[in-house]
Amino acid sequence: MLQIEHLGIAVADLAAANALFARLSGAPAYKVETVESEGVSTSFFKVGPNKLELLEATRPDSPIAKFIDKRGEGIHHVAFEVADIRAEMARLKAEGFTLLSEEPKRGADNKLVCFVHPKGTNGVLVELCQEIR
Amino acid sequence: MLQIEHLGIAVADLAAANALFARLSGAPAYKVETVESEGVSTSFFKVGPNKLELLEATRPDSPIAKFIDKRGEGIHHVAFEVADIRAEMARLKAEGFTLLSEEPKRGADNKLVCFVHPKGTNGVLVELCQEIR
Repeated sequence: MLQIEHLGIAVADLAAANALFARLSGAPAYKVETVESEGVSTSFFKVGPNKLELLEATRPDSPIAKFIDKRGEGIHHVAFEVADIRAEMARLKAEGFTLLSEEPKRGADNKLVCFVHPKGTNGVLVELCQEIR
Repeated sequence: MLQIEHLGIAVADLAAANALFARLSGAPAYKVETVESEGVSTSFFKVGPNKLELLEATRPDSPIAKFIDKRGEGIHHVAFEVADIRAEMARLKAEGFTLLSEEPKRGADNKLVCFVHPKGTNGVLVELCQEIR
Protein backbone atom coordinates (compact mmCIF):
# COMPACT_ATOMS: atom_id res chain seq x y z
CA MET A 1 0.00 0.00 0.00
CA LEU A 2 1.59 3.21 -1.21
CA GLN A 3 -0.59 5.87 0.43
CA ILE A 4 -4.16 6.93 1.14
CA GLU A 5 -5.35 7.63 -2.39
CA HIS A 6 -8.65 9.11 -1.27
CA LEU A 7 -11.22 9.23 1.48
CA GLY A 8 -14.79 8.55 0.29
CA ILE A 9 -17.52 10.66 1.93
CA ALA A 10 -21.25 9.92 1.49
CA VAL A 11 -23.34 13.09 1.03
CA ALA A 12 -27.04 13.68 0.42
CA ASP A 13 -26.68 16.74 -1.83
CA LEU A 14 -23.52 16.82 -3.96
CA ALA A 15 -23.89 20.43 -5.15
CA ALA A 16 -24.22 21.74 -1.58
CA ALA A 17 -21.39 19.50 -0.35
CA ASN A 18 -19.15 20.64 -3.23
CA ALA A 19 -19.55 24.26 -2.08
CA LEU A 20 -18.88 23.29 1.54
CA PHE A 21 -15.78 21.18 0.83
CA ALA A 22 -14.37 23.93 -1.38
CA ARG A 23 -14.53 26.23 1.67
CA LEU A 24 -13.14 23.50 3.95
CA SER A 25 -10.24 22.44 1.72
CA GLY A 26 -9.57 25.87 0.24
CA ALA A 27 -10.09 24.90 -3.44
CA PRO A 28 -13.01 23.73 -5.59
CA ALA A 29 -13.55 20.18 -6.86
CA TYR A 30 -11.24 19.43 -9.78
CA LYS A 31 -13.44 16.71 -11.24
CA VAL A 32 -17.10 15.61 -11.17
CA GLU A 33 -17.94 12.18 -12.54
CA THR A 34 -20.94 9.84 -12.52
CA VAL A 35 -20.34 6.07 -12.31
CA GLU A 36 -23.75 4.78 -13.38
CA SER A 37 -22.82 1.12 -12.77
CA GLU A 38 -22.22 1.94 -9.08
CA GLY A 39 -25.18 4.33 -8.77
CA VAL A 40 -23.05 7.30 -7.70
CA SER A 41 -22.16 10.82 -8.71
CA THR A 42 -18.73 11.76 -7.42
CA SER A 43 -16.56 14.84 -7.04
CA PHE A 44 -12.87 15.04 -6.18
CA PHE A 45 -10.85 17.51 -4.11
CA LYS A 46 -7.05 17.53 -3.77
CA VAL A 47 -5.40 17.85 -0.38
CA GLY A 48 -1.68 17.60 -1.10
CA PRO A 49 -0.92 14.02 -2.21
CA ASN A 50 -4.39 12.82 -1.15
CA LYS A 51 -7.94 13.29 -2.40
CA LEU A 52 -11.41 13.55 -0.95
CA GLU A 53 -14.16 11.88 -2.99
CA LEU A 54 -17.72 13.02 -2.31
CA LEU A 55 -20.37 10.43 -3.24
CA GLU A 56 -24.05 11.12 -3.91
CA ALA A 57 -26.51 8.32 -4.77
CA THR A 58 -28.07 8.49 -8.25
CA ARG A 59 -30.84 6.01 -7.36
CA PRO A 60 -32.55 4.69 -4.20
CA ASP A 61 -30.88 1.25 -4.34
CA SER A 62 -27.37 2.74 -4.59
CA PRO A 63 -24.98 1.57 -1.82
CA ILE A 64 -24.57 5.26 -0.90
CA ALA A 65 -28.33 5.73 -0.44
CA LYS A 66 -28.40 2.66 1.80
CA PHE A 67 -25.40 3.90 3.80
CA ILE A 68 -27.01 7.32 4.41
CA ASP A 69 -30.36 5.73 5.32
CA LYS A 70 -28.63 3.59 7.93
CA ARG A 71 -25.87 5.85 9.34
CA GLY A 72 -26.37 9.35 7.95
CA GLU A 73 -23.84 11.30 5.93
CA GLY A 74 -20.14 10.84 6.71
CA ILE A 75 -16.96 8.97 5.88
CA HIS A 76 -17.85 5.92 3.79
CA HIS A 77 -14.53 4.30 2.85
CA VAL A 78 -10.77 4.73 2.63
CA ALA A 79 -8.95 3.93 -0.59
CA PHE A 80 -5.30 2.89 -0.65
CA GLU A 81 -3.22 3.26 -3.77
CA VAL A 82 -1.37 0.08 -4.69
CA ALA A 83 1.24 -0.60 -7.37
CA ASP A 84 -0.23 -3.94 -8.46
CA ILE A 85 -3.85 -4.48 -7.48
CA ARG A 86 -3.94 -8.17 -8.41
CA ALA A 87 -0.85 -8.89 -6.30
CA GLU A 88 -2.30 -6.92 -3.37
CA MET A 89 -5.65 -8.75 -3.68
CA ALA A 90 -3.80 -12.08 -3.58
CA ARG A 91 -1.73 -10.97 -0.57
CA LEU A 92 -4.82 -9.87 1.41
CA LYS A 93 -6.74 -13.02 0.50
CA ALA A 94 -3.80 -15.12 1.74
CA GLU A 95 -3.86 -13.06 4.98
CA GLY A 96 -7.50 -14.08 5.50
CA PHE A 97 -9.28 -10.90 4.37
CA THR A 98 -12.50 -11.19 2.35
CA LEU A 99 -12.58 -9.36 -0.99
CA LEU A 100 -15.88 -8.12 -2.40
CA SER A 101 -14.95 -9.11 -5.96
CA GLU A 102 -12.70 -11.78 -7.44
CA GLU A 103 -11.43 -9.41 -10.14
CA PRO A 104 -10.68 -5.66 -10.03
CA LYS A 105 -13.53 -3.46 -11.31
CA ARG A 106 -13.42 -0.20 -13.20
CA GLY A 107 -14.07 2.66 -10.72
CA ALA A 108 -14.20 6.46 -10.85
CA ASP A 109 -11.14 8.62 -11.62
CA ASN A 110 -9.60 6.15 -14.09
CA LYS A 111 -8.91 3.43 -11.52
CA LEU A 112 -9.07 -0.32 -11.16
CA VAL A 113 -10.61 -0.96 -7.75
CA CYS A 114 -11.45 -3.76 -5.32
CA PHE A 115 -13.13 -3.52 -1.90
CA VAL A 116 -12.32 -5.50 1.24
CA HIS A 117 -15.25 -6.63 3.43
CA PRO A 118 -15.56 -4.30 6.46
CA LYS A 119 -16.54 -7.18 8.78
CA GLY A 120 -12.91 -8.31 8.66
CA THR A 121 -11.38 -4.83 9.09
CA ASN A 122 -12.96 -3.43 12.28
CA GLY A 123 -15.86 -1.89 10.36
CA VAL A 124 -13.61 0.03 7.93
CA LEU A 125 -14.59 -0.31 4.26
CA VAL A 126 -11.20 -0.51 2.51
CA GLU A 127 -10.77 0.06 -1.23
CA LEU A 128 -7.64 -0.87 -3.15
CA CYS A 129 -7.06 1.17 -6.27
CA GLN A 130 -4.56 1.28 -9.08
CA GLU A 131 -4.36 3.92 -11.80
CA ILE A 132 -5.20 2.64 -15.30
CA ARG A 133 -2.31 3.58 -17.63
CA MET B 1 -4.37 21.91 4.46
CA LEU B 2 -1.20 20.10 3.45
CA GLN B 3 -2.35 16.48 3.35
CA ILE B 4 -4.29 13.80 5.22
CA GLU B 5 -2.08 13.39 8.27
CA HIS B 6 -3.99 10.39 9.58
CA LEU B 7 -7.26 8.55 9.57
CA GLY B 8 -8.62 7.78 13.05
CA ILE B 9 -10.30 4.38 13.48
CA ALA B 10 -12.30 3.42 16.58
CA VAL B 11 -11.65 -0.17 17.72
CA ALA B 12 -12.93 -2.22 20.64
CA ASP B 13 -9.74 -4.25 21.24
CA LEU B 14 -6.50 -2.44 20.40
CA ALA B 15 -4.22 -5.50 20.70
CA ALA B 16 -6.36 -7.53 18.28
CA ALA B 17 -6.72 -4.57 15.90
CA ASN B 18 -2.95 -3.95 15.97
CA ALA B 19 -2.37 -7.49 14.73
CA LEU B 20 -5.04 -7.12 12.04
CA PHE B 21 -3.83 -3.74 10.73
CA ALA B 22 -0.26 -5.03 10.62
CA ARG B 23 -1.49 -7.73 8.22
CA LEU B 24 -3.61 -5.23 6.29
CA SER B 25 -0.95 -2.52 5.91
CA GLY B 26 2.00 -4.89 5.70
CA ALA B 27 3.93 -3.50 8.71
CA PRO B 28 3.40 -3.35 12.48
CA ALA B 29 2.41 -0.23 14.46
CA TYR B 30 5.41 2.06 14.92
CA LYS B 31 4.04 3.73 18.04
CA VAL B 32 1.54 3.02 20.84
CA GLU B 33 0.53 5.91 23.07
CA THR B 34 -2.16 6.58 25.70
CA VAL B 35 -3.68 10.07 25.91
CA GLU B 36 -5.32 9.90 29.35
CA SER B 37 -6.92 13.36 29.03
CA GLU B 38 -8.87 12.13 25.99
CA GLY B 39 -9.58 8.66 27.39
CA VAL B 40 -7.86 6.81 24.55
CA SER B 41 -5.07 4.37 23.85
CA THR B 42 -3.75 4.82 20.32
CA SER B 43 -1.46 3.07 17.87
CA PHE B 44 -0.04 4.37 14.62
CA PHE B 45 0.67 2.71 11.27
CA LYS B 46 2.48 4.33 8.33
CA VAL B 47 1.06 4.08 4.81
CA GLY B 48 3.46 6.12 2.69
CA PRO B 49 3.04 9.81 3.63
CA ASN B 50 -0.10 9.07 5.64
CA LYS B 51 -0.90 7.33 8.93
CA LEU B 52 -3.66 5.23 10.39
CA GLU B 53 -4.43 5.86 14.07
CA LEU B 54 -6.29 3.13 15.93
CA LEU B 55 -8.21 4.38 18.99
CA GLU B 56 -9.39 2.26 21.93
CA ALA B 57 -11.34 3.75 24.84
CA THR B 58 -9.62 3.64 28.24
CA ARG B 59 -12.87 4.36 30.15
CA PRO B 60 -16.62 4.05 29.55
CA ASP B 61 -17.19 7.82 29.16
CA SER B 62 -14.46 8.16 26.51
CA PRO B 63 -15.70 9.66 23.21
CA ILE B 64 -14.48 6.47 21.53
CA ALA B 65 -16.60 4.26 23.81
CA LYS B 66 -19.64 6.42 22.99
CA PHE B 67 -18.90 6.27 19.27
CA ILE B 68 -18.63 2.46 19.30
CA ASP B 69 -21.80 2.12 21.42
CA LYS B 70 -23.70 4.22 18.87
CA ARG B 71 -22.22 3.20 15.50
CA GLY B 72 -19.92 0.24 16.04
CA GLU B 73 -16.23 0.11 15.17
CA GLY B 74 -15.02 2.02 12.12
CA ILE B 75 -13.58 5.26 10.79
CA HIS B 76 -13.94 7.94 13.47
CA HIS B 77 -12.23 11.05 12.07
CA VAL B 78 -9.88 12.41 9.43
CA ALA B 79 -6.95 14.61 10.44
CA PHE B 80 -5.43 17.16 8.08
CA GLU B 81 -1.91 18.42 8.59
CA VAL B 82 -1.71 22.22 8.55
CA ALA B 83 1.30 24.53 8.61
CA ASP B 84 -0.20 27.02 11.08
CA ILE B 85 -3.08 25.62 13.15
CA ARG B 86 -4.15 28.98 14.60
CA ALA B 87 -4.33 30.56 11.13
CA GLU B 88 -6.32 27.59 9.80
CA MET B 89 -8.68 27.73 12.79
CA ALA B 90 -9.28 31.44 12.10
CA ARG B 91 -9.84 30.78 8.39
CA LEU B 92 -12.40 28.01 9.04
CA LYS B 93 -14.19 30.08 11.69
CA ALA B 94 -14.46 32.95 9.20
CA GLU B 95 -15.87 30.45 6.65
CA GLY B 96 -18.66 29.59 9.11
CA PHE B 97 -17.36 26.27 10.48
CA THR B 98 -17.76 25.50 14.20
CA LEU B 99 -14.58 24.58 16.08
CA LEU B 100 -14.78 22.29 19.12
CA SER B 101 -12.18 24.32 21.04
CA GLU B 102 -11.12 27.96 20.97
CA GLU B 103 -7.45 27.05 21.36
CA PRO B 104 -5.43 24.12 19.97
CA LYS B 105 -5.05 21.20 22.40
CA ARG B 106 -2.17 18.80 22.89
CA GLY B 107 -3.00 15.53 21.05
CA ALA B 108 -1.26 12.20 20.48
CA ASP B 109 1.88 11.84 18.34
CA ASN B 110 3.37 15.22 19.40
CA LYS B 111 0.67 17.34 17.76
CA LEU B 112 -1.37 20.45 18.44
CA VAL B 113 -4.92 19.60 17.41
CA CYS B 114 -8.36 21.14 16.99
CA PHE B 115 -11.59 19.46 15.86
CA VAL B 116 -14.32 20.88 13.61
CA HIS B 117 -17.94 20.08 14.47
CA PRO B 118 -19.24 17.27 12.19
CA LYS B 119 -22.70 18.85 11.96
CA GLY B 120 -21.20 21.48 9.66
CA THR B 121 -19.12 19.06 7.55
CA ASN B 122 -21.62 16.46 6.26
CA GLY B 123 -21.10 14.23 9.30
CA VAL B 124 -17.29 14.09 8.91
CA LEU B 125 -15.34 14.71 12.13
CA VAL B 126 -12.37 16.79 10.91
CA GLU B 127 -9.21 17.27 12.96
CA LEU B 128 -6.59 19.88 12.20
CA CYS B 129 -3.12 19.04 13.43
CA GLN B 130 0.27 20.67 13.49
CA GLU B 131 3.52 19.03 14.58
CA ILE B 132 5.01 20.51 17.77
CA ARG B 133 8.63 21.42 17.03
